[in-house]
Amino acid sequence: MSVLALAGGVGGAKLCLGLARVLSPDDLQIVVNTGDDEEFYGLHVSPDLDTVMYTLAGLANPYTGWGITGETFATLEHLGKLGEDTWFGLGDRDMATHIVRTNMLRQGKSLSEVTSRLYRSLGVEHPVAPMTDDRVRTKAVTNIGTLEFQTYFVKHRCEPVVRDLVFDGSGSASMSEAFSKALSDRSVLVYCPSNPLLSMAPILAVPGVESAIKSFSGVTIAVSPIVGGKALRGPAAKLLEELGEDVSCVGVARRYSGICDVFILDDLDRHHADEIRSLGMVPVVVDTIMNTEQDKIDLARIVLEVAGVAHAR
Amino acid sequence: MSVLALAGGVGGAKLCLGLARVLSPDDLQIVVNTGDDEEFYGLHVSPDLDTVMYTLAGLANPYTGWGITGETFATLEHLGKLGEDTWFGLGDRDMATHIVRTNMLRQGKSLSEVTSRLYRSLGVEHPVAPMTDDRVRTKAVTNIGTLEFQTYFVKHRCEPVVRDLVFDGSGSASMSEAFSKALSDRSVLVYCPSNPLLSMAPILAVPGVESAIKSFSGVTIAVSPIVGGKALRGPAAKLLEELGEDVSCVGVARRYSGICDVFILDDLDRHHADEIRSLGMVPVVVDTIMNTEQDKIDLARIVLEVAGVAHAR
Repeated sequence: MSVLALAGGVGGAKLCLGLARVLSPDDLQIVVNTGDDEEFYGLHVSPDLDTVMYTLAGLANPYTGWGITGETFATLEHLGKLGEDTWFGLGDRDMATHIVRTNMLRQGKSLSEVTSRLYRSLGVEHPVAPMTDDRVRTKAVTNIGTLEFQTYFVKHRCEPVVRDLVFDGSGSASMSEAFSKALSDRSVLVYCPSNPLLSMAPILAVPGVESAIKSFSGVTIAVSPIVGGKALRGPAAKLLEELGEDVSCVGVARRYSGICDVFILDDLDRHHADEIRSLGMVPVVVDTIMNTEQDKIDLARIVLEVAGVAHAR
Repeated sequence: MSVLALAGGVGGAKLCLGLARVLSPDDLQIVVNTGDDEEFYGLHVSPDLDTVMYTLAGLANPYTGWGITGETFATLEHLGKLGEDTWFGLGDRDMATHIVRTNMLRQGKSLSEVTSRLYRSLGVEHPVAPMTDDRVRTKAVTNIGTLEFQTYFVKHRCEPVVRDLVFDGSGSASMSEAFSKALSDRSVLVYCPSNPLLSMAPILAVPGVESAIKSFSGVTIAVSPIVGGKALRGPAAKLLEELGEDVSCVGVARRYSGICDVFILDDLDRHHADEIRSLGMVPVVVDTIMNTEQDKIDLARIVLEVAGVAHAR
């Protein structure tokens, strides 16, 4: 009942919201990928941290899953007039987040401190931390060259063929304090249904994380973001294929082999249960699609029940 | 017919627009006060440079004279939600200007380079430069303490009683290259109708400026921002009174004594002409009120005619 949830952006944020609805702030620590972070116009943008933040704060755009609902783009439009590239769609309200973050970082605060301040300002009580306070940047090695992550992801809409993913800086990064602490004192670790290659891999690439998970004393549970051979959103399926992995929940599960006890797969994928078992994980077949807030709460409850730590709240 | 115009914000920008309408880019160099500059949220804001820019670019809010017409304030509102002070009303479009400026300054560009880039992006062809690339900050010594300029001007709405004005950093500042060059190669110097204490004094406080003006080989002309004993806008009248000066065009003229040949005063103030003459300046009485763009062009033409450099265009 004391949970550490690892998350990327939209998919992960959905389960985080469910977990936050059924667990008290003391019982949930969320740790978020920062490999997607990038500077635009000198402003430090942390897309996954912000997607989780806006989701937990009830501000997220329900159609995109990222950004703020009702967002406007006047600043971006004017940046364009001033000759700047504007392919990364930063909204006016979102811009305020990056302005505050950048200013605090420049004043010497850590990304963890900045994140806590931002989340608290928006009324989020559950603790959320970046995977690291150090600079890690995911880069896609593609058929058109090595691309900054957002250049690959947003500017080129994931169209280039990916040959490899590298996490620049991860070799010398340290886990954030909250992450390190949670790995030693929490009883459940949840891999949220985020992209295993783009969201989870950078987290796992931070030195010490994999070994800490291998010696984690509690239960480790993953939720597949691939359902029926398709990614619920984003390029996970395309990437699995390009990198020569199974485009199925099995391909995802293989990524967690050796660092995961229980693997939750969708009803649609029940025929993969034996393969999951053969990877050393207990397969649990449920409906994993989260459209409504109730779906998110239901899946969170299942995750906790499966972990034997169900909360009746 | 080769003009250097010195300007502060709104009042100065009006005459600058008139001058830009009748002079080619080669024949007009505008130099703007930066004593009002301040950092908000880590962003470098240059209010006077931006007021002149938006005015020349045709973007200025016609009601306030500063800011961009049709401006929105979503970023500022969200900054407030994130716990930041929001008394300085930065709009969404305006924010883009500060973001680009700050980013370029952090990359090592000078404020002059940044200013040129911003103006050109918005289609302004006439060259405009800051008075200096160095940091000068106007501070108001008041009955409630020494205040940053914008804190005095915007947050406290000029209400505190000013005992002195200081221009922090001006002692070690250097004129911008464009300013220095214009002082040596232009044939007319115009003090636009800006606040003599807040807009012109910081410019004159940059080392070398006063002596360069004293040895300026062309004609120097000032336009009074005080008409009928009242400031056309802003706290000029209140400040003149608080600092023990005449609250009239004579009080303004006294500030330019020894560094100005011709002083343009409004029809309403014609009774002050002799006092102006006794200060060593040639008084020229005209209608100085600039409401419409035609008013601005007309006054610019008068200034140029008075300088003997009339353009028939």
